[in-house]
Amino acid sequence: MSRADRFLRACRGLPVDTTPVWIMRQAGRYLPEYQAVRSRVGFLELCKRPDLATEVTLQPVDRLGVDAAILFSDILIPVEAMGAPVIMGDAGPSLPEPVRDESAIDRLRVLEPESVGFVLDAVRMIRAALSDQVPLIGFSGAPFTLASYLVEGGGSKSFIEIKRLMFQRPELAHRLLDKLAKSMGRYLAAQVGAGAQVVQIFDSWAGVLAPEDYETFALPYTRQVIEALPAPRVPVIIFGTETAGLLERLRDTGADVVGVDWRIEIDVARARLGPGVPVQGNLDPCALFLPREHLARRVEDVLRRAGPSGHIFNLGHGILPPTPVDSAIAMVDIVHERGRARASQ
Amino acid sequence: MSRADRFLRACRGLPVDTTPVWIMRQAGRYLPEYQAVRSRVGFLELCKRPDLATEVTLQPVDRLGVDAAILFSDILIPVEAMGAPVIMGDAGPSLPEPVRDESAIDRLRVLEPESVGFVLDAVRMIRAALSDQVPLIGFSGAPFTLASYLVEGGGSKSFIEIKRLMFQRPELAHRLLDKLAKSMGRYLAAQVGAGAQVVQIFDSWAGVLAPEDYETFALPYTRQVIEALPAPRVPVIIFGTETAGLLERLRDTGADVVGVDWRIEIDVARARLGPGVPVQGNLDPCALFLPREHLARRVEDVLRRAGPSGHIFNLGHGILPPTPVDSAIAMVDIVHERGRARASQ
Repeated sequence: MSRADRFLRACRGLPVDTTPVWIMRQAGRYLPEYQAVRSRVGFLELCKRPDLATEVTLQPVDRLGVDAAILFSDILIPVEAMGAPVIMGDAGPSLPEPVRDESAIDRLRVLEPESVGFVLDAVRMIRAALSDQVPLIGFSGAPFTLASYLVEGGGSKSFIEIKRLMFQRPELAHRLLDKLAKSMGRYLAAQVGAGAQVVQIFDSWAGVLAPEDYETFALPYTRQVIEALPAPRVPVIIFGTETAGLLERLRDTGADVVGVDWRIEIDVARARLGPGVPVQGNLDPCALFLPREHLARRVEDVLRRAGPSGHIFNLGHGILPPTPVDSAIAMVDIVHERGRARASQ
Repeated sequence: MSRADRFLRACRGLPVDTTPVWIMRQAGRYLPEYQAVRSRVGFLELCKRPDLATEVTLQPVDRLGVDAAILFSDILIPVEAMGAPVIMGDAGPSLPEPVRDESAIDRLRVLEPESVGFVLDAVRMIRAALSDQVPLIGFSGAPFTLASYLVEGGGSKSFIEIKRLMFQRPELAHRLLDKLAKSMGRYLAAQVGAGAQVVQIFDSWAGVLAPEDYETFALPYTRQVIEALPAPRVPVIIFGTETAGLLERLRDTGADVVGVDWRIEIDVARARLGPGVPVQGNLDPCALFLPREHLARRVEDVLRRAGPSGHIFNLGHGILPPTPVDSAIAMVDIVHERGRARASQ
């Protein structure tokens, strides 16, 4: 079995030679070679230059030895193309024109994937450059998380504005979510058409919702996105944080793989999801600050709990900028080494 | 049964005439009469003036008809008295001298409750003013949450600094946590001595920890605080958010009542905790933005799921400043009305 097969097989729950591993935000600020590129161009420009997006997407594939590449982009890129200006600041993105009423929602355009042709060009360039060494993951935000950014005008602590819209004007919230679901369905289908072999849907803020609200305002729209993908469908990974109360519902979106954060043991998560459901996760990103022997023990613990198949190793959220690169490399090595020992048992 | 008994009986799992209800941050910015007081004094001064702390503590008891009063104070008040300056800003507290090394930890003093005599005076004044109309809740932060504030220097997004300390210098983290546990044990015992009839321990950030880390760095220290309370012990409520993966461990601190946030259905939480464990919660604070008939349906849903005994109704986190007062009043009324119907069935 080649390195190229591991990740795709694990997404299907098939036996693997060792546990595949990649890292959310693996192309990012913790890498000096990424910072070198960023010193020359802004974040949005980097997303919009297929040559540079390709360069930074490939950086961690060799440096870390991960088993998948993920398109360098941002979940708000298609939102900007729908008509909502986005500013990328050091403290996170902000949207200077929050979408909070009927006319603002109606002004948003359903995404035409050609309007983000630079993303599709990047997918094609990355895919060609990878030469099938490892698979390429495309991605989008989930409709609820994107709606949160649009309505809040950026990140949020209490998500008052999006919840106020959902609770006081549910018909408007549904109209916005439907527009986002249609857009993300088209967007991911276009990424698959351009060469993405797996897609991950980031419902980063799903965990702020009560289960009932997740069922009303998030689940059906994520399902709509997944159902818009062309058959035969590429594997779909659904990811969120603070979702220990929502895991079964994440699975019920129709996604093939359920992301699990570190707030719940991955064996407890698997027991709840059922044995046939592959999972991705779930090391605390801060565990990369541990001394190597403790890091190794944590990695082994995740591998042991997750079991030898149907598991993609990852952090439970994005790698943090102050992370030592050597620690990320060590993590990947340990996963492969111990995963191989487990797979051959 | 009188209004005064409901809350204390529910903490013990005993039958009640209707479900008791109070609201985290019920004395707070959503109340115009609180804002009127705050327009004259700063937040820290308000905490340090027993007469004013008493005034704002009592405001919601009559206005809302809640079944408990909670001391108006802040979890960082005793931390300041341990030697760490605290600044209360609009965006939350900040500690201009973060505690990150051995000498800084050693400089912190174990709390002498007399050094926060104004808190104990407030407890006595409130207790006298309440005339046993409803019980008085005292509170403290949990050692882990307080350590997070001290090490991060305020709130945090990723909790890198406290985790770095825990992971790279665990012996120092334990020394800090032990000092905080000793301090909070004394602090809560002194509040009980002054008249607090129940105490709530706020482990607001517990949910950022993996279960293994909660067991190492949080659980033993919260247990130490609880064990320091004088016998016969007043009921102890343990509260955190994002704890759907940690509920059993919150119970294992020895607390009598486990707070549940809205990220998990309260019946699912009770099933995991066991039938003998009273729970508190768990409406999403944003549900108070719902139109009244929808709010009523949500409240009923929580009551139905939680069952008629061993349940204290509350929000899953503090009431938000923009909340309409009428909505909070309506919530309390609905809990009492529907709870009474359920209790008599």
